[in-house]
Amino acid sequence: MISPEILDSLFSPESIVIVGASHTEKKLGGIVLKNLLKSKVRIYPVNPSYEALMGIKAYASVKAVGELFGAGGASVDLAIIMRPASEVPGILRELHPWTKTAVIVSAGFSEIGQAELQDEVKTIGKETGIRLLGPNCIGVYNAHQKLDTFILSYEKLKRPKKGNVAVLSQSGAILACFLQAMRASNTGISKAVGYGNAVDIDESDIYDYLARDPHTDIIISYIESLGDGKKFIKAARALSEKKTLLILKSGKGASGQAAAFSHTGRLAGRYEVFNSILKQFGIKEAVDSDDLVDSAKALSYQKPLNRRGGQRVCIVTNGGGSGVLASDECMKQMLDVARVREEKVQRLRDMFPPFYSMSNPIDLTAHVKNSDYAVVLETLKDDYDGFLIIALTAVTGITDALAGIIKDFRETTNKPVVLYTDSNSSSRSITALFEKAGIPVYPSPERAARALKTLLSK
Amino acid sequence: MISPEILDSLFSPESIVIVGASHTEKKLGGIVLKNLLKSKVRIYPVNPSYEALMGIKAYASVKAVGELFGAGGASVDLAIIMRPASEVPGILRELHPWTKTAVIVSAGFSEIGQAELQDEVKTIGKETGIRLLGPNCIGVYNAHQKLDTFILSYEKLKRPKKGNVAVLSQSGAILACFLQAMRASNTGISKAVGYGNAVDIDESDIYDYLARDPHTDIIISYIESLGDGKKFIKAARALSEKKTLLILKSGKGASGQAAAFSHTGRLAGRYEVFNSILKQFGIKEAVDSDDLVDSAKALSYQKPLNRRGGQRVCIVTNGGGSGVLASDECMKQMLDVARVREEKVQRLRDMFPPFYSMSNPIDLTAHVKNSDYAVVLETLKDDYDGFLIIALTAVTGITDALAGIIKDFRETTNKPVVLYTDSNSSSRSITALFEKAGIPVYPSPERAARALKTLLSK
Repeated sequence: MISPEILDSLFSPESIVIVGASHTEKKLGGIVLKNLLKSKVRIYPVNPSYEALMGIKAYASVKAVGELFGAGGASVDLAIIMRPASEVPGILRELHPWTKTAVIVSAGFSEIGQAELQDEVKTIGKETGIRLLGPNCIGVYNAHQKLDTFILSYEKLKRPKKGNVAVLSQSGAILACFLQAMRASNTGISKAVGYGNAVDIDESDIYDYLARDPHTDIIISYIESLGDGKKFIKAARALSEKKTLLILKSGKGASGQAAAFSHTGRLAGRYEVFNSILKQFGIKEAVDSDDLVDSAKALSYQKPLNRRGGQRVCIVTNGGGSGVLASDECMKQMLDVARVREEKVQRLRDMFPPFYSMSNPIDLTAHVKNSDYAVVLETLKDDYDGFLIIALTAVTGITDALAGIIKDFRETTNKPVVLYTDSNSSSRSITALFEKAGIPVYPSPERAARALKTLLSK
Repeated sequence: MISPEILDSLFSPESIVIVGASHTEKKLGGIVLKNLLKSKVRIYPVNPSYEALMGIKAYASVKAVGELFGAGGASVDLAIIMRPASEVPGILRELHPWTKTAVIVSAGFSEIGQAELQDEVKTIGKETGIRLLGPNCIGVYNAHQKLDTFILSYEKLKRPKKGNVAVLSQSGAILACFLQAMRASNTGISKAVGYGNAVDIDESDIYDYLARDPHTDIIISYIESLGDGKKFIKAARALSEKKTLLILKSGKGASGQAAAFSHTGRLAGRYEVFNSILKQFGIKEAVDSDDLVDSAKALSYQKPLNRRGGQRVCIVTNGGGSGVLASDECMKQMLDVARVREEKVQRLRDMFPPFYSMSNPIDLTAHVKNSDYAVVLETLKDDYDGFLIIALTAVTGITDALAGIIKDFRETTNKPVVLYTDSNSSSRSITALFEKAGIPVYPSPERAARALKTLLSK
């Protein structure tokens, strides 16, 4: 296990050397410098051709930075290396003994068959004690510190809002795709890290670290292949006991496994074995990338408070068909769309027009008013474990005030509540209000049903 | 079978009586009048309190309109009825004998237990010969004629673009949800119809009509329940032989069936029976609403030209991880992500840097240039039946010109090609270009894989 202090140097550094910094955003070294200028960290850009880069004093060499730290024993928390692969061993030696951690962005190692060069880097890491992220990696993002070493500009990758989901991926491209999807689904992140070929720091080390991270409640982890299976299982189990770990495994079939190998140079292993181990230890696995993002959203908005495992679901809708689709998916997910108790049916009938349907799904029809939802939810709050609300906004009776009603219900009961709404212009404003109120909104009844299942799983 | 001429009166009327027209868009009768003013049809609004509505001469009663047609035997193609349920029988009698078809928007029939009133309406339809759509229905939309009887304003429901997909649903709310989703996914529609309680014209009649409709190639049909199962099977089979019929059945479980009954007053029947009949006759069924919309999009953009049933798929990507996810899903869908032939591997190796991966998925990495896709596709065009292209736009080598390259490939080979791209700002412009070029774009690798499966199914 890597000490938390070391990984603090990686995720919350106070000082950074940028090896291969540039004056222009046309180069990676310029993008990273610009992104880092947004944080409050001390920066030492290295570039032999410039005296200053983006208004910051530049250093002619790594050595020149090292001289600042030589005698006093002071050190730099993090180095970011963006030079060609062949130069990386030499750079690492120069960073010693005054650098704690290094992100090796450079590609050109095992993933293209240069295993010897990668082994050399690994060995130097061990010899010097510099803990390494990468090589062939996109870097580190810490939303709560505004730390951003990503080699992607904000133009190319708009960052999601700050939140409680940490995102891990070997692949930087996949990480970027997930971050985009999370931004689109209005889910906030705490930390994001692409660890590439993982010669040193790997998913397991980061799991250990995130288990103690106060900003992180949910961890989503995309895995193509594992270096050390036993270490992974130990860390994943320990993390799952404290927080929600959600894994998306790729490379499930033979061709996928071959692709995963050539992508990261690590063996994917047989998926069936992986899958059965996760099951055995109760670690959650997503079916595909939509499922990963949808589940992370649900868990980010609401804590599953369902330790006794109740699966009784109430669906309240103002569109009959959407209610039926939600009900079908709930049953597919083994949720119990249980009938409304006769006594409650009578109580509701006394308050509503005769054409409202009081079976479950409860259909308030196009004649619905906001307050109808309040009446139904208040009446049935003790009879169900989770609630799926459908609010189609094309009818006049539904207004923005519905968000407040559902929010109050959620806060009183603390039971899982998810929402499906259609996608016209008035639904966009109401969606924002719901999500501000802590109710995750999904773009189809089936996706809402699956999200509710996530929140009702132990 | 209803004669095509009669259904022409419904879908392409030249004259319309609006019973319950209004001067204000605050009422359904005003929304419908305004929507119809966009078409070139002759309109006869009926409202006893106004001499004119929205600049059109109004008539005090249905009779007053009938007097225009009395002696000469001339007739009105379509009546739209938006008066309370109890008035509907009387209105229908007054529309006789000069009206061919009627859309009964009014609710308050079997869906709220008023079966007798519904039977009366049905009987009057038979006696008078007026063919009826509804009651309890949203109406008819014909994109190629700009005919729009929907009771939803454009503000509440932006219509999708004109295209080749017809959409059928008993439920108007579901129809609206699908139309919104199709608009968001950039899929064009030919006709859309909500047929409600279906006392007369039902899905089967509309299938027969659409089988001959030159503007419609794909039909998506949402079904909660069936009135006449045998009639449905006959019409669905006949339609499937000429065009692609894609069904989404809801009410699959016990609670869903109960809900479907209270929603439309028709029995849903056992899903297992329905499902096995569809399979037997080769009628396609969607898994859920996302699948329905995604499949319709694929089929709308490209004709499946794969009568021999080839399932060999080539994945070309510039993001390794996304390629692996696509590959996993292809295998789940029983597609064959077959290895690249050794001879072709060699040919490609000669043209590309050593770190490009030439197994399938073919990974062109972040170093990709547009022209690399052209080289790969040209080299492998005869070896595969379908192509899944992944273009992550965060890298500099991918530009808008890629759309032209993929378009040329598609036009030369006529083989199914689908695309996944990420969702940043530069991808939005390239997505528009791809879709203009006839290549459907999907928001996740797995959804792209499922769409390719749709195009490779017989």
